[in-house]
Parts: sequence; structure tokens; C-alpha cells
Amino acid sequence: MTTIFDPEDEVLSGDTADIYLVRAQAILRHEDLNPIVTMEVFSNGEGLLCGMREVLALLRQVLPLEAELSALDEGQTMGAKEVVLRITAPYGSFGLYETAYLGMLAHQSGWATAARRCVEATQGIPIISFGARHVHPRVAARLEYATMVGGFVGCATPAGARLSNVSPTGTIPHAVILIFGDTVEATKAFDRHIAPEVNRIALVDTFKDEAEESLRVAEALGDKLWGVRLDTPGERGRVTPDLVKEVRARLDQAGHEQVKIVVSGGIDADRIGLFVGKGAPVDAFGVGSAVSSAPPIDFTADIKSIEGTPVAKRGRIPGITPNPRLQRIDLAETSPD
Amino acid sequence: MTTIFDPEDEVLSGDTADIYLVRAQAILRHEDLNPIVTMEVFSNGEGLLCGMREVLALLRQVLPLEAELSALDEGQTMGAKEVVLRITAPYGSFGLYETAYLGMLAHQSGWATAARRCVEATQGIPIISFGARHVHPRVAARLEYATMVGGFVGCATPAGARLSNVSPTGTIPHAVILIFGDTVEATKAFDRHIAPEVNRIALVDTFKDEAEESLRVAEALGDKLWGVRLDTPGERGRVTPDLVKEVRARLDQAGHEQVKIVVSGGIDADRIGLFVGKGAPVDAFGVGSAVSSAPPIDFTADIKSIEGTPVAKRGRIPGITPNPRLQRIDLAETSPD
Amino acid sequence: MTTIFDPEDEVLSGDTADIYLVRAQAILRHEDLNPIVTMEVFSNGEGLLCGMREVLALLRQVLPLEAELSALDEGQTMGAKEVVLRITAPYGSFGLYETAYLGMLAHQSGWATAARRCVEATQGIPIISFGARHVHPRVAARLEYATMVGGFVGCATPAGARLSNVSPTGTIPHAVILIFGDTVEATKAFDRHIAPEVNRIALVDTFKDEAEESLRVAEALGDKLWGVRLDTPGERGRVTPDLVKEVRARLDQAGHEQVKIVVSGGIDADRIGLFVGKGAPVDAFGVGSAVSSAPPIDFTADIKSIEGTPVAKRGRIPGITPNPRLQRIDLAETSPD
Amino acid sequence: MTTIFDPEDEVLSGDTADIYLVRAQAILRHEDLNPIVTMEVFSNGEGLLCGMREVLALLRQVLPLEAELSALDEGQTMGAKEVVLRITAPYGSFGLYETAYLGMLAHQSGWATAARRCVEATQGIPIISFGARHVHPRVAARLEYATMVGGFVGCATPAGARLSNVSPTGTIPHAVILIFGDTVEATKAFDRHIAPEVNRIALVDTFKDEAEESLRVAEALGDKLWGVRLDTPGERGRVTPDLVKEVRARLDQAGHEQVKIVVSGGIDADRIGLFVGKGAPVDAFGVGSAVSSAPPIDFTADIKSIEGTPVAKRGRIPGITPNPRLQRIDLAETSPD
Amino acid sequence: MTTIFDPEDEVLSGDTADIYLVRAQAILRHEDLNPIVTMEVFSNGEGLLCGMREVLALLRQVLPLEAELSALDEGQTMGAKEVVLRITAPYGSFGLYETAYLGMLAHQSGWATAARRCVEATQGIPIISFGARHVHPRVAARLEYATMVGGFVGCATPAGARLSNVSPTGTIPHAVILIFGDTVEATKAFDRHIAPEVNRIALVDTFKDEAEESLRVAEALGDKLWGVRLDTPGERGRVTPDLVKEVRARLDQAGHEQVKIVVSGGIDADRIGLFVGKGAPVDAFGVGSAVSSAPPIDFTADIKSIEGTPVAKRGRIPGITPNPRLQRIDLAETSPD
Amino acid sequence: MTTIFDPEDEVLSGDTADIYLVRAQAILRHEDLNPIVTMEVFSNGEGLLCGMREVLALLRQVLPLEAELSALDEGQTMGAKEVVLRITAPYGSFGLYETAYLGMLAHQSGWATAARRCVEATQGIPIISFGARHVHPRVAARLEYATMVGGFVGCATPAGARLSNVSPTGTIPHAVILIFGDTVEATKAFDRHIAPEVNRIALVDTFKDEAEESLRVAEALGDKLWGVRLDTPGERGRVTPDLVKEVRARLDQAGHEQVKIVVSGGIDADRIGLFVGKGAPVDAFGVGSAVSSAPPIDFTADIKSIEGTPVAKRGRIPGITPNPRLQRIDLAETSPD
Repeated sequence: MTTIFDPEDEVLSGDTADIYLVRAQAILRHEDLNPIVTMEVFSNGEGLLCGMREVLALLRQVLPLEAELSALDEGQTMGAKEVVLRITAPYGSFGLYETAYLGMLAHQSGWATAARRCVEATQGIPIISFGARHVHPRVAARLEYATMVGGFVGCATPAGARLSNVSPTGTIPHAVILIFGDTVEATKAFDRHIAPEVNRIALVDTFKDEAEESLRVAEALGDKLWGVRLDTPGERGRVTPDLVKEVRARLDQAGHEQVKIVVSGGIDADRIGLFVGKGAPVDAFGVGSAVSSAPPIDFTADIKSIEGTPVAKRGRIPGITPNPRLQRIDLAETSPD
Repeated sequence: MTTIFDPEDEVLSGDTADIYLVRAQAILRHEDLNPIVTMEVFSNGEGLLCGMREVLALLRQVLPLEAELSALDEGQTMGAKEVVLRITAPYGSFGLYETAYLGMLAHQSGWATAARRCVEATQGIPIISFGARHVHPRVAARLEYATMVGGFVGCATPAGARLSNVSPTGTIPHAVILIFGDTVEATKAFDRHIAPEVNRIALVDTFKDEAEESLRVAEALGDKLWGVRLDTPGERGRVTPDLVKEVRARLDQAGHEQVKIVVSGGIDADRIGLFVGKGAPVDAFGVGSAVSSAPPIDFTADIKSIEGTPVAKRGRIPGITPNPRLQRIDLAETSPD
Repeated sequence: MTTIFDPEDEVLSGDTADIYLVRAQAILRHEDLNPIVTMEVFSNGEGLLCGMREVLALLRQVLPLEAELSALDEGQTMGAKEVVLRITAPYGSFGLYETAYLGMLAHQSGWATAARRCVEATQGIPIISFGARHVHPRVAARLEYATMVGGFVGCATPAGARLSNVSPTGTIPHAVILIFGDTVEATKAFDRHIAPEVNRIALVDTFKDEAEESLRVAEALGDKLWGVRLDTPGERGRVTPDLVKEVRARLDQAGHEQVKIVVSGGIDADRIGLFVGKGAPVDAFGVGSAVSSAPPIDFTADIKSIEGTPVAKRGRIPGITPNPRLQRIDLAETSPD
Repeated sequence: MTTIFDPEDEVLSGDTADIYLVRAQAILRHEDLNPIVTMEVFSNGEGLLCGMREVLALLRQVLPLEAELSALDEGQTMGAKEVVLRITAPYGSFGLYETAYLGMLAHQSGWATAARRCVEATQGIPIISFGARHVHPRVAARLEYATMVGGFVGCATPAGARLSNVSPTGTIPHAVILIFGDTVEATKAFDRHIAPEVNRIALVDTFKDEAEESLRVAEALGDKLWGVRLDTPGERGRVTPDLVKEVRARLDQAGHEQVKIVVSGGIDADRIGLFVGKGAPVDAFGVGSAVSSAPPIDFTADIKSIEGTPVAKRGRIPGITPNPRLQRIDLAETSPD
Repeated sequence: MTTIFDPEDEVLSGDTADIYLVRAQAILRHEDLNPIVTMEVFSNGEGLLCGMREVLALLRQVLPLEAELSALDEGQTMGAKEVVLRITAPYGSFGLYETAYLGMLAHQSGWATAARRCVEATQGIPIISFGARHVHPRVAARLEYATMVGGFVGCATPAGARLSNVSPTGTIPHAVILIFGDTVEATKAFDRHIAPEVNRIALVDTFKDEAEESLRVAEALGDKLWGVRLDTPGERGRVTPDLVKEVRARLDQAGHEQVKIVVSGGIDADRIGLFVGKGAPVDAFGVGSAVSSAPPIDFTADIKSIEGTPVAKRGRIPGITPNPRLQRIDLAETSPD
Repeated sequence: MTTIFDPEDEVLSGDTADIYLVRAQAILRHEDLNPIVTMEVFSNGEGLLCGMREVLALLRQVLPLEAELSALDEGQTMGAKEVVLRITAPYGSFGLYETAYLGMLAHQSGWATAARRCVEATQGIPIISFGARHVHPRVAARLEYATMVGGFVGCATPAGARLSNVSPTGTIPHAVILIFGDTVEATKAFDRHIAPEVNRIALVDTFKDEAEESLRVAEALGDKLWGVRLDTPGERGRVTPDLVKEVRARLDQAGHEQVKIVVSGGIDADRIGLFVGKGAPVDAFGVGSAVSSAPPIDFTADIKSIEGTPVAKRGRIPGITPNPRLQRIDLAETSPD
């Protein structure tokens, strides 16, 4: 796809822009001022850059072909105060979109950076994003996408999965088990009606002790059971490393070595470290709030040159900030997205 | 307006829903199961409830008229674990939207709660939202709206302002001042071209010392100048209470008592408390990251009764949780929004 | 009983005394020195005095009738450095027993003080001592006794209970339930064979979820069931306030309002405070390590007068330390114990 | 000696056992249940194992010859959760003694572990146990024994010393010096009447400055003086490293290089480290409360197999926990004790 | 006395002034600039003002009679940033002395503030300054004076005492006692040769235990002994509250109730609080380092008006800072000093 | 110069001595006691020794030629409790001066040690002392001297500079700039009237933004400008590393690469580390309070031998403390000072 923004989109129209940018466009038009400026965007904290793909798609739509654009790639690490994007173009062509491109980078880089921290703690155990429910649905897919950039292996919403060209991942909600009145019955219904390529993962903390329920579903589904998900609520002490070890041992002792264990519920980098440190045999983690609660990483845009003359507001160094990591974007080429 | 979601909207279609909810709908349909359930939604932390207006609009679109719905009002305080929403309806009619309604509440309540904390610190000094640039543009208006629910008096984006039935608020970006090359010239151009009902607020930290520049623009614009905005960057020590006092004193000594002082740049509840505690004569604050960096307040949805029988997953108390603060919503009435 | 020490007892013989006291007796005998001295015993920390009953029984056996003895009562609070015991007698009659009487006071006062801290945290909920297994069996009864002095309402060993003139308290060990293979079967066997005046308290965390098992035993035993004991191990997150609330609610919803809930497993004053603070409906606590791990409160014995002349070692004030709280002990009377 | 428990001993009779174990025996007898079970005992903390010698003596008295028994040795280090004892025998033969054997291990391992910590801090300076007065006389000898297992070189009570096959160690109590009215006179009396193989150690802080008194006794006893003990009370700032250096220097300058310095009074591992770190020439430490105040290290006993079938209560892994460090005990052999 | 500075004094000559002030005088002279300015001096911290008497004496010498001068009084409390001195005079008459008058205030206010903190801790027990040895002899008298302003009742140097119109206070140095070889002999020699109006205070920690030595000097001097000074060095644990209590008790028991106890050696406000809190019967404290180690309280001098026009450097408010606490100084009057 | 103290100097007369030393001299004279003693002076903390040069000059004036004197050199590091000075002489010849020589060492070593800490933080960037205004003018030169011993390269007062054989260093006070009303005019006046060998350093924070003012003075003075001094007050956020970088960049971009940057205002070792760590291109620091607020390092003088016999007060080791670092001072030689 070569564009992602409708002509009437709220972003393109400036409806979601800070009003002072809208007014700035009006003033400069009235004054016939439209100089070629160089705008640099830098991150105020270190982390993992995310959102640049979306930003470049926006800029491709609005910048003239002769503009110069260079940027860090999606998913690269960035240092504090590092310039990640440089635009040289008539100010009138892109000044209005400052709110939008800063926000795209801020929100998604915050999420991707938090996801990466979890990934680093797992020492190789895969993580699935379960955080869509903690953010507004208008950005749920963006959060899911950011976790994938951060190294998660799967995410839960169709819209988010599509952004990363994967299939969405899920188990069974407590609601369905409560409606069936029995974990085994609900799991068997899942098995009857859901496409065979979807893994059968039983949720085993609804009615009975997790270890007992795990053995019941393993007996009932046999080899068709891919795994069990432990999601013990805080009221019951959450999933502990020892619970994982015990369920694993009881499954193994009953001959269900193939059944995997997925752990979710309040999992963050610290708790992942606890499971890993105690050698709990977790096969996958589901992580939600640990990513959704990460603050955005703020970005700042500065004009550093006007018609070739270095300038800067007080507090900043006039002129281009050299950054050899920036890569030139060819505006004539079709975006890879 | 009576609906806010297009028939093909990604929320209505389930595209932003967790896939296990999509599959649950399929399984229950295949099994011909669609019991009337009571779902309760509670907050995992205390704070200010926000997003309920949007959630109710969604539920009005999907619930049958005979469903029962009760909720806390937008903008009410809520305790940890307090039930804020109770739905009694066929599960099939609304089960798919759990991801969406939880996310709407989580994100907006997080922002509104952070905004309220700032408001409480000001002891009456008004605050304007400057945070749109720190979140994805798809939720920028929602953040702006949440700050207004939290007690801010203005916000910066047209889309956000519209949600609260106010006009957007703004000053002048550094970019325009850099292009004009002089703060006074830029402010005069603003004055020439922008509608007279918009306040003239000069940004006075671009080129010269803030106090010197404040006097220059006050001299140049006279009574037309509503105020100055101090936004000293971190590289220069940010705006300090003493700077505000000094600018105030120098303006007053030069006869510009009517010029107000707006303070922005890294302002949060703690720093507001510092300004207030030291008696700095601030007329308004602009707050961004302090709200945008607030984590969502997670909400949880639990089935507590099925066809009239109290149930609950392990860790929760079966049956309805009494909460006299909940107000019954009349689904037959047109939504006030 | 008027004596508690056999003539050949290791305490009376000096076998458990510090050897320098044994040698001191020999030296003074050889030198024909046996002055009347006043020895004062003070506590090095504040707390609850315990062990004095045993100490007085020992001293009654060894002191001549004309000796003077005054002491604080068993179970009284004492301040740091407060004199709790004063002996005026020929040094040769009691000098050997300094190690013994200090140790009796130290160990038991430490336990009683820790018990009192737990009692104060409960705000009226009764506590039973479960700590015998954490101390050497030769002092298990003394620990049990000290907890009763500290305010516990029951203890677990026959020897300890006898010291406090109560019946021992207990439930069912996990071992028996494991041997029966089912909690309900084990509880029914208990009910068949144990005297009817003993409360039937089922231990409900051996095989199944605590809530499920509680309902099963309540159904099976009906009104004969006095209560259930929750003892969830650390591997499963220990007993939480929410678990108590949930079990209570599920029992009540099933009509078993009369079944009480006993909570044990790692309970100390802080955790008691947590249960009480969250309003968890606990009917009794079982406390072990919180008492057994309390350090002894050291006591010191000082000669303060010799043949009527005030003396003291460096660092202490010569002469009697007035303490109006001390009560004179009549050595001619038979001990109340 | 091959047995240590009288037939009527309170431990063998179950008088010091938790009552629920007494009742368990009764129930199982009535039900004719006496399966062969495997019981594993593990430590809840790391430390130095102590008390196993006593536990094995008890088990040798009660277990049938065909029982299987394996254990870690007395004085070995143990990890947290490490199995230190495994019993395979008819439950009825040993179930009653769980309170006793856990308590023996808990109390003595706690003391031995604390003693070891002091020993590690001394970097080779010997330590003598002075803690009998801080525990009940019924366990004073056990505490003394545990300090020897932990690496102390001497202890103060005859009963404790006998458990370790050493002679008890002591100096002179303040009481005797006060009665003599002079440190030199008291020390000379000690020298007159106590067997020559006992070291002459003068206590030098009763009447005069420690340095002055040290010189006085050194002059008076000459080569017969083995050492002096500094025991300055807290009211006088306790023994400091500088005091030891000064006494050493003054003794040396007066030609008493052979007189050793023993330091006591509130000595724990931290204060030992202070003396060692500052190079104070201490020849031996006397340690009391630092050991007696150590909490017991709790142990837990779990049935892990019944008649060959792996079992476990919830939270534990069913079946034997492999531990190659365990050594098989030959019940047919006479105990080495 | 009406002047304190010789015409050739290093302060008057500018020899101790910052060279840039010397150069400033030269420049302004060359340019024929000598405007009447108002200089305000404020404190950068709160505390007790000290040194103003000396500053005013200096200014009286240099300012013309028509200058205006107002100030806070010596010994008044001052707030952070409070103006304590205002000079309106030709800049050339006093600009050179900025280094001097700021330094006089800074050093002495720092000392006086620290002294006041000690005084507040004593709850009425008098304090004597023993700190001269911790500062350069050129300011020893100034430190002594500042402690008197802070509330001490005596000081040790003749020069310092003269500044406060008192007699110097002292006891006996360890050196003299060492030379006499005996505390009693040294104290008797003091009594023989020193004027009878000087209190006899024996220093009792040189050779023997403090309590023993106190009794010896009390016996030897009888009613002539005013008191004893305890100065136990850190190597011996310093003076403790218990030592004071013990010495008091032993003196009283021997009939020397009239002998007072002076405590010195590392005494600061915290340790004074310890003695007071524990009820140690101290009659006077000697304090040294607690005052001498106090940092100066920096003062700043700002020109706030030139020839009647409000001015200020950036960061300060132009014009006079109202402070009703300032008192006008009449330059025509002879200084009270 | 061979003497530094006038015959009537307050130090030589004993006027600044502790009165008990004055009285000690009187007592010993009356008793005809004047033994040869060895006095050792040790430091109570580690640091840089300073003041010894002054102390030796004093002792040379008062000691008889046959006295023995050894000392560490000025500017050497010293350990805690290290002996830095040893005097063997008749006590009457020097006993009176104990207050003085301890104070000289204490105050100056405290300052020199603090100065050295700053020097170590700079990693080679020179520091100038600006602290004279924070201490009494009677010791301002001594503080300046101590900073030079500590490694500063310049100081601000003529008297202080003379002690180190350097020329004083300074810029321009704010007062002069305020009088001229313009930084450029004031700097040009400085250039007109001050000797050409004095560096022209403009103070650039009085009226305008530091960067703007730096460019103005650089344009006005051209190559004659040696540097600018940034001294931004706390009210404006102090000088930040970023401000230095920005001023450097703006100066360089305008072709003023030769203009150096001096930074002052609240600079201490921590803040120096911040500038160095962030790579701010500072050419010199001005440091004041960080040195003047350093507490004195207390020194103690002990008699260790009298007429050849080792002695010491309680708490100290009798006799000479060997220290091979001490160097013998030849009293017959003329002092190098």
C-alpha cells in the first residue's frame, strides 16, 4: 500500500494537531513566508525506536519530492538526545504534522522499549502481547505492533497482528468456561469448532486447583492439547515459580510431557526474572500491563537551519547535529510498506 | 449524535478485539449457547473515572433494549476494586467488546486521574493541556478530553476541544519565531492575522533573555498582549519560580501589570507544588508529559451470574457486588451525547 | 505441687551452669566466705515478663527461709533496664543458679513478648500456638506456656497445655489426609474416632482448591463441622485475605454460615495486621515461627550490696535500685504453683 | 551410649508432640492403616545442619530395622529447601515424633549457623560460647553443643562441654570479685584453690580502669596469669578495639607479653569484624547473645510416597526429591554416639 | 572604642579583598563614576545573624555621614534570602569592602547558628566553648564571640572572652596532669597557685577510672572542688549518659553532692539530646567541633538601585526589597561598641 | 623572612590560647616544673596537610635550639590518626601554643583537602579560588593559600596570592556592569584602564542572555577578549553543561574560537564531575563555598613521653608512635620561608 491516510483523515486535516501549528500555517501563508527549513527530531530518552514506519508514510504523503529526509530505522536502539529524523523541506509542507509525528514516535517507542525489557529478561522464552485491553481501541493495534518490534512473538488482536504480518494468538476466556460450567467441556468445545491449525491452550484456573485441572484437560484432550495457561489471580497469590514447577512435574508424572505451560497475570520484567532465576519451566509468557503502563518516550522537533543558515532557539546548538546512523530516505521510491 | 461507531468500524467488527473473544463468540454460536449473564467491570486502582461516556455509546449500539445497564458517571472518583459498570444481557450481544470497553476506560481514566492530581496541586491556577504530541494522534483527542474531565480548563487540539465543547487554546510555536527571526515581529504578525477573540500570548524564550523579551513584546503590543509564555528548556534550567517572580516584577515596574504569565516545560504536580509553595505569580500552566506519561488504570470484567445463578472464577466472589453508587442507564432513551 | 526440680536435676546440680559459677562456689567455700548479698536482676529490653513462676519455684527450693525475695509477677510488662527480681540471701545459697534463672526469664520472656505483639495485632481474633516444632522438644512446653502468658488462647502440645491448665488444640495433619487419599474421608475418620468434645476442623488445602474442598467437607459433615483450616503453602502464594473472603462467601452461599475459618502458615503480626486491615473474616489464627523466631530478651544479674554495704561493678550504680512495682515473696508460704 | 531417651521420656510419650499427631496415630490405628511412607525433611533456609545426631538417636529407638533412613551429616552446610533427612518406614512407627525431630533440627541448626557466622568473621581467633544464660537451662547444653558444631573452641557449661567431649571454659564472675573487694585478691584466691590445669584469666573491669587493673594482676600473678578478660559494660562504651590495643601495649611495655586478652560483652559477627579490621590484638572472644538470639531455621516434613506411589500435598512435587548428598544410615549398626 | 581598624589594616587597604573589587575601584575612578547606589545584603540560609557589630564598625569608618545604613541586630534570627543589611552611599566609598563584610557575616553567623542549635538541645544546661583549637588563631576570638551570641555561657580564650565582656573559662589540661603524674597532685597544685575566684574543676580521665578518680579528688579537695570534667576519649567509648549517672551516684553516696559534672569530648546537638533524653545529670557541656565544623552561611550583596533607579542583575528583582525588621543606623552617633 | 609573629602578637602573647594552657604555664612555673616532653600531634581524619609551614615558623620562634622537631611537609596527604608533628622540648617553651598550632593545621588542612577534592574532579581543568567572601577577612588569605596547596591555580585576594607567590586573579563584578548599564561598555572600560597583562574576562550574565552577551563582547573586544565568565544565578537555574556547550558553539560559529569559558556559581566537586562527565568545554572553574564550607580537620596533641619515660593519658598508647614519613627539622637553619 502506498498511502495510509485518507484525504479527509483527522491527521491530515490538522484536526488532531496543536492549534498553534494550525495558526502558524495561516500566519506564514498570509505573510508569504515558506522557507526551506531543516527540522531535527530527537528522543528525550534512550530506548527502542518505533513508529518511524508510520511517520515516514505520513511524510511521503505530504512532502514534495525534492525534500530531503533521513531517519533511523524502525526497531533500532536510540540514545538519549539522539536525532532520529531530519527533514529539509519548505516549512509549509509539513509544519502542521509535528503533533502527529511526535506522538506516533512517542507512544510506540515507549511501548516497544518496555517490550524489549521484558524480552531481555526472558532469556529466550517467547512472549505474547496481552495488553490490548489496557489501551484505547484506537491504538490497540499500534501497541500490539510495538510489542512485536520489541521482540514479542505474538499478539492478540487481528488488527495488531496484521500490522506485523502474523496471525493473532489466543486461548479461551474465563467467560466461556464459566458458561460451559466446566473447563474440560469448554476446552473440548473449542477443539470441536476452531480451525485445527490454532493451538489448543486450556485455561486451568477457573474452577479447580490448577494442577488438578491441568491433569483433567490433558487426560481429556490427549495429544491435541498444545498447552495450559496459568493465570491465577492476585487474590490467590498469582502464578508462582513453584506452581509452574509443580504443574510441570504432575503433568510429566502422568505422561503429558508434551503439554506446554503459558503463564500470565501481572507479568513484568521483574517477575519474568524471578521465574527464570528460579528455573520455572515456563514455555511462554503473556504480558499486558507491563507494556501498556510504560510512559511514552517524548520526542522534540527543532528547526536547526532556515534557508541554509544555522539557527536554533536558546538552549539548542544552531545547525545540523551530525548523526552518521541516519539513513537517507528516497522519496521517489515507493514505500516498502 | 446518537451513534459514534460506523457499522464497519474496527471496534464494532472485532478487529481490535482479543482473538479469543472472537473465537469465544464462534464457539458459543456453534453450541447454541447465549445465556443472559451479568458482567461486572471494576477498576484495579483508585482514581477518576473517564471513558464511560464513550463506553455507554458503544453498548447502546450493541445491547438489546431489554438489557440492564448501570454505571458510575463520567468524572466520578472511584475506589480500588470498585464496580463501575454492570451489564446484564445475552453474552453474545456484547462479549466481543470486552477489549474495547476496558481499553476505553483504562487509558482515559489514567489520563484523567493524572490531570486531577495536577489540578489539585495548583490551588486554583488554571491548566491547559499541551500533551497531544506525546501520544499517538489516534488518541490525542481522547487525552485532551480526559484532561478536561480531570479539571483542566483548555486543550490544544481542535478534535480534543470539540469533545469538550470548548475552543482550542494555543500560543505561537518556536518555529514561527525562528522563521521571523525576532519574537516581536512574529508576535505582531500573529496579531495581524489571527482572529481578535484569540488571546495574544507571546513565547519569550526563543532568542533573548525571558525578562528582556517580555518587556520588548509588552512595549510593542501594549494592551493587546494578553500574556507571555515562559518555556525555558532544560538545557537552561527550565522555568524556575524565581524567574516568574522576576518577570512579573519587571513587567509591573514597566507598567504592564495586565500581562499574564503562562508557564510550561516539564511541569508536573510536584513542580506545580513548588511554584505554588514559593508564591510564584503564575497565571496558567501548560502541562503535557505529566498526563501523557500516566499509566492506564487497568479494569477487569468478570461474569458474576449466569441465567440468574451466582458464579465466579476462582479468586472472585460469586454473584452481584452491591454498589449503591451505580446508576441505572435507560437504554430506550437517546444518549445525552 | 511444691517442688519442680528433682534433687539430681541437672539444674540443681549445676551441670547446666556456667563453670565459673561452679568454681566461684568452690573458691568462696575454701575461703569461708558466704556474705549476705543483694542481687538484682534487670531486663535489657522492654517486653512481657515470663518465666518468673519457674524461677521462683527454683529459688524456693534453694534459698533459706530468712532470705528476702521480691519480684514482678508473671505476665507483667517490664521496661528496659527495669529490675524484675531482687534476692537478698547468702551468696552461697543461690549464686550457682544465675545461669539457670537468667535463661528461664530470657527465653520465655522473648517468646511471651512476641506472642503479645501478635495478640495486639489481631484486635480480638483468638490465636493458637503452632510453634512447638520450631524449638527443641525440651523447651516446647515452655514456648507453649509463654504464648499463653502472652495472650494466646490455645496451644498444641499436651505438656504445654498442662502448664497453662488448658486442653491442647489441634486439627488434622496433611500426612493423615494423604494416607486416606481424600480430605473428606480423612475428616470423616477423625469424626468417627475422636472424642466428641474435640472440635472437628478440616484441613482443606491438601488435594483440591481450598474453596472447593471447604464446600465438600461442609456438605459431608454438616453441622458437625466446627471449621476449616486454610494453610496454603508459600509455593501457592500462602493464605491471602481475599482467599478467606472468597471461602467465607462460598460457604455462606451454600448455607454453611456456622463453619469457622482458621488461618495458618507464616502468620506474624504484620500479616495479621493485613488480614485485619482488609476485613478478612478470620475466626482464629495459628501462629508458629513468629513466636519461635523471637530472640530471647537478655537479663543481667548484679550484686548491689554486700552485708548491707552498697557496691557495684564499674558501669552500675551501687546499692538497691528502687522499684515500687516489685512484690515481696513470702518464702514460708507454699508456692501457689 | 546406644539410647538417649528413657522409656518414659516426654518426647517418646508424645507429651511434647503436637496433639494432632497424637490423634492421627489413634485414627489410623482404629482404621487399621499403617502404610509404609517416605517422609522427607527439608530446611527452609540455608545454614549449618545441627541436631541430626540427636534426631538419628531418636529414630534408631523407634524405627523397625527394615526401615530405610538417609541423612546429611551433623555440621554440613545445607541449602534452602534441601532435603536433609529421608525416612521410609511404616507411618505408625515414627509419625508421632515429627514435632520433636523438626524442633531438634530447627533450634540447633539456628544456633550452629549463627556460631559459624561469628567464626567466619574472626579469621582464626578462637571463640568461646558464653550464651547459656540467654536460653532456658533445659536447652543450655544443646546451645553449647551447637556452637561447637559451628566452630567455637570452647563452651561454658559442664553439660554442654560433655556433649562435645571437651572441658568447660570459664574465668571469674564479677560477683566473686565484688565479694573479695579487689580484683587481685580474687584472682589470687582463684589461683590458690582451682586445679592448676585451669587457665588463670583475670576479669579486669570490675573496680578500676581496665589497663590499670591488667597491670596489677599481671604484677601479682606473674607467669601464672594466662590472660585477662575485658568485659566493659555498655554503660562504659563496651570494649573497643583501641582499648585492646592500649592494654596490649601497656602489658607489653611492662614485660607481660605472655598475658593474653579475652574480649566479651555484646560481641557479634559485626563487632568481631570491627576488631579484626582494626587489627586489635584479641586472643579470644566470648560470644553469647549473637548465637542465642539467632532464630531457629524452620524445617518441614512432607510425605512424598505411600506404599511406593508418589504423592504430595498441593504445592509440593510428588515423589522422592533426589539428593546425592544424603548418606544411608545402617539401622542395624550401633550408633556411633 | 570607636574604631577597630588601623589605617594600615589589611582589610581597609583592600589586601584581603577580591582583586576584581580593587580593579573596579580603579576603573570607576578613571571614568569618574561614583554613583550613589543601594546595596542589599541577604543571607542564603536561615540562621542566627552574627558579625553585624563588626561590619557596622567597619562601615562607620568608611561611609560618609550622609550615607543611609540599616541592618538587623546582632543575634537576631534571619530567614533564607532575608535582607539583613542595606547601604545607600556612593559606591566608591564602600565597594571595596564587599569581600570583608560578607566574610565577617558568613563565618560568624555559621558559628553562631551552630551554637544556637546546641543551646536549644540542652534545655537549659549551660555550654562553654572549647572550639578555639579547631580554627585558625586569627579567628579564634571571633568563633568564641559567635558562640556567646549563640547562647553559650562561657568561652576559653582571653581574646574571645573580652569580645563578650566575660572572663575566660577553663579546667586543667591533660598535659599538666601527666607532668604531675597524678590527678590529685595536679589539682592540688592548681588550687595552690590559681586565683581563688577561678572554679576548681578536676579533669578525671587521665590515669584512672573516671569514677574512682572523681572520688579521689573530691576527698582531697573537699568543698574547694567546684566540679569534675569527664572527657573520656573515643578510644574508650567517650562519655556516656550512664557514666555521668554513675559518677553522680558515687559522688553523692560519698557525700560530695556539691561537686558538679562537666562533660566534653565530641559533644554536638545530637549527643546533647541523648544526655538530656536519658536524664544524665550534666551540669555543663564543653562544645568544640560541633561549632567549628559548621559551614559559613553565605551572604550575597546586590546593587538594587543606582541614583534612585531600581536595577538588578538577571535573576534578582530590581529595586529595594522591603524588610520592616531592618533598623536604621545613625552614622552620626558613636558606635555603642 | 625569618619571623612572622610580632613580639606583641596575640598568638605569641597567649591571648588567643585556651585559658587553661595559660594557667598551666603559671602552675608549672610556680612549681618549678619544666620537664622535657615529647608532644605528638595527629590528625583525626585523612586529608591534605596544610598549615605546617606556618606552624613551623611559630615553633622556630619559641623553641630552644636544642629542641627536636620533626614533621610532615606542607601539602602531603595524611592518614587518619597519623602523627604529623613531633616536638621534644621543655614543655614550658611551647605548651602555651597548642591552641594556635592545632588551629592553624585544622582550618587550613580542612580547606586544602576540600580544594584537592575539586581538583581531582576536574581531570585537568584549572580552578581559581573565589571563596574569600565566605570566611572572615582575617583568614581569607589563609583560605586562598590552602586552595593553592590543594592544587588550585589561582586565587582572588592580593594577600592570599602573595602567600603563594602568584598574582591575584579576577574578572569584573556585577556591580560595575550595573553602574555602566551595559556589559560591553563595562568590559571596554576595563580594557582601557587595567594593565594589559591582566586577562580580559567578561562577565556575561548581568543583563542579557549569556549566549547573546558573549557574542556581543566578543564582537566588541575582538582578540583582546581572553574569555567570558558564566555565573548564572540559582534563580535562573545556574550554569548548566548544556549552556556551556551552546555558548561554545555560538562563539565558534561566529569565529571566536579563542574566547575561553570560565564557569562559577555554586560549583563543587559533584557539579564539576557533572560538567566533565557531560563533556562541557569549560576552560576554568571558579570555586568558593565548596572549599569555604569544608569543616576543619581536627588535630590532637598528646604528651607521649616525659624526660624520656613513655607516658600517655588513658586511651592512648604511651611512648613515641613511629612514623618514618616524618622529617627532621633543623632548628639552626634559617626557615626556607
